[in-house]
Amino acid sequence: MSAGKINTMAIIGVGSIGASLGLALKAAGAVGEVVGCGRNEDNLKTAQNSGAIDRYTTDPAEAVQGADVVFLAVPMGAMGSVLQQIAPALGEETIVTDGGSSKGSIIREVQNTLQHPNRFVPGHPIAGTERSGAEAGQGDLYQNRRVILTPLDTTDADATECVTQMWQAAGAEVETMSHQHHDDVLAATSHLPHMLAFGLVDSLARMDDVDEIFRYAAGGFRDFTRIASSDPVMWRDICLNNREALLDAMQRYVKDVRDIYKAVDQADGDTLLEIFTRAKTTRDKFCG
Amino acid sequence: MSAGKINTMAIIGVGSIGASLGLALKAAGAVGEVVGCGRNEDNLKTAQNSGAIDRYTTDPAEAVQGADVVFLAVPMGAMGSVLQQIAPALGEETIVTDGGSSKGSIIREVQNTLQHPNRFVPGHPIAGTERSGAEAGQGDLYQNRRVILTPLDTTDADATECVTQMWQAAGAEVETMSHQHHDDVLAATSHLPHMLAFGLVDSLARMDDVDEIFRYAAGGFRDFTRIASSDPVMWRDICLNNREALLDAMQRYVKDVRDIYKAVDQADGDTLLEIFTRAKTTRDKFCG
Repeated sequence: MSAGKINTMAIIGVGSIGASLGLALKAAGAVGEVVGCGRNEDNLKTAQNSGAIDRYTTDPAEAVQGADVVFLAVPMGAMGSVLQQIAPALGEETIVTDGGSSKGSIIREVQNTLQHPNRFVPGHPIAGTERSGAEAGQGDLYQNRRVILTPLDTTDADATECVTQMWQAAGAEVETMSHQHHDDVLAATSHLPHMLAFGLVDSLARMDDVDEIFRYAAGGFRDFTRIASSDPVMWRDICLNNREALLDAMQRYVKDVRDIYKAVDQADGDTLLEIFTRAKTTRDKFCG
Repeated sequence: MSAGKINTMAIIGVGSIGASLGLALKAAGAVGEVVGCGRNEDNLKTAQNSGAIDRYTTDPAEAVQGADVVFLAVPMGAMGSVLQQIAPALGEETIVTDGGSSKGSIIREVQNTLQHPNRFVPGHPIAGTERSGAEAGQGDLYQNRRVILTPLDTTDADATECVTQMWQAAGAEVETMSHQHHDDVLAATSHLPHMLAFGLVDSLARMDDVDEIFRYAAGGFRDFTRIASSDPVMWRDICLNNREALLDAMQRYVKDVRDIYKAVDQADGDTLLEIFTRAKTTRDKFCG
């Protein structure tokens, strides 16, 4: 494998995340052959026709044969089973990386399944689309997006370097941090908001006059609840895989909402104005 | 005043809501003269130059002299003071209506201030923009948007009919309901989500690593928190004016979030999947 170019790559799970990486690396000339693997042949054919993968198999062990790099892009809940299937077939030097939304849990699974956990580079592209499947793949999905890698002290430096170059070739900015910190930050900025949006829509969905309630939902409501249209299975898996950090974030949040509740209850306009102003200033600064 | 046309109209508070109504009614030929009133002369000049109002004054009592219809579009917190200022100057037949986001509180204020509360038609256009001031006025803001009127049993039928025609001329669909029901529905679909978004951003804003946290906030977070960039004063006023319905909605919501918390804590994937699926199905159905 020459510097900056991957000869053979396996993408296990060719949904929008996996297919987009294939398309981007192909377009950049940063990869030789890409082998796709999944359970749905129609989806794999779509990926092949789009040029995201060169060939495919439905057998993970076969897919990783001779691969320099293996990218795991299956739902978090399927990671353990896929790791077990590929473990016996991985080469000693094969680099394995993933795109899962929480990192602590997969690191534990890797330690328990792979013979060479030092070749595993945990990763998470902060990108995605509400659409799913290979047909949602976009070669520019990662352009100027952040990818977080969370290597351990024991992770081989050359493996981290290779995965870094791979994401850079796909157009992303790569950063590294500890997996604990990643899981805390993502719990706060992604997992918690998803819980709140799912929770709100479900709360309204169970009311008697649900049809009427949604009749009067304006643009703000649509934006606020957009993430509640995300894939339920994916989000169940994320919850189960990042439980501790998510529970911390939810607990802190419910406490803060209770403060707002108290201020409304006591008609404490000053406190409300202070909270709303700090929130608006912060959001305008960072997302304006 | 001939059917369907207002001879003279006063718009008190010429922000985006007030200016947009002026522009729409002028374009529809549904109004003769429009008098604007506000505290900021530069803003009033902007409104005059855009054609939203014909002339202006900074004195509410002067503005309503000889008006057939008065539209109150000041922040909720200023409604009481404006009502007191205009009360002595209103004609016996003058119809007063408003655009406030909660209806119970202004109805109480009208009963306490106006000599002819039966000429008051409480209203709420379900439309708005994050931008504020007359320069944010758009003649098509109300096109195909809903306007809710909440007349009392004692409200004069001809007043309700006139305000209905006014909004229809501006392009809106008009519906009526009780003010209690309006306040409950809006608490659930608008006021509660604003609290949750303000609360989340404020919660993160007070963390030590706020810069880093927002660095990794992706598109979903931006959508979710867009409403946290809304005007803090306006939202303080809405909270204080719709306290009871908002407290009910917040209480119900926190209870539902606790159920999600419990399911995460107990790694109860089935319950999580059930909640997320119901939420996704509901949102896709109503906002898809």
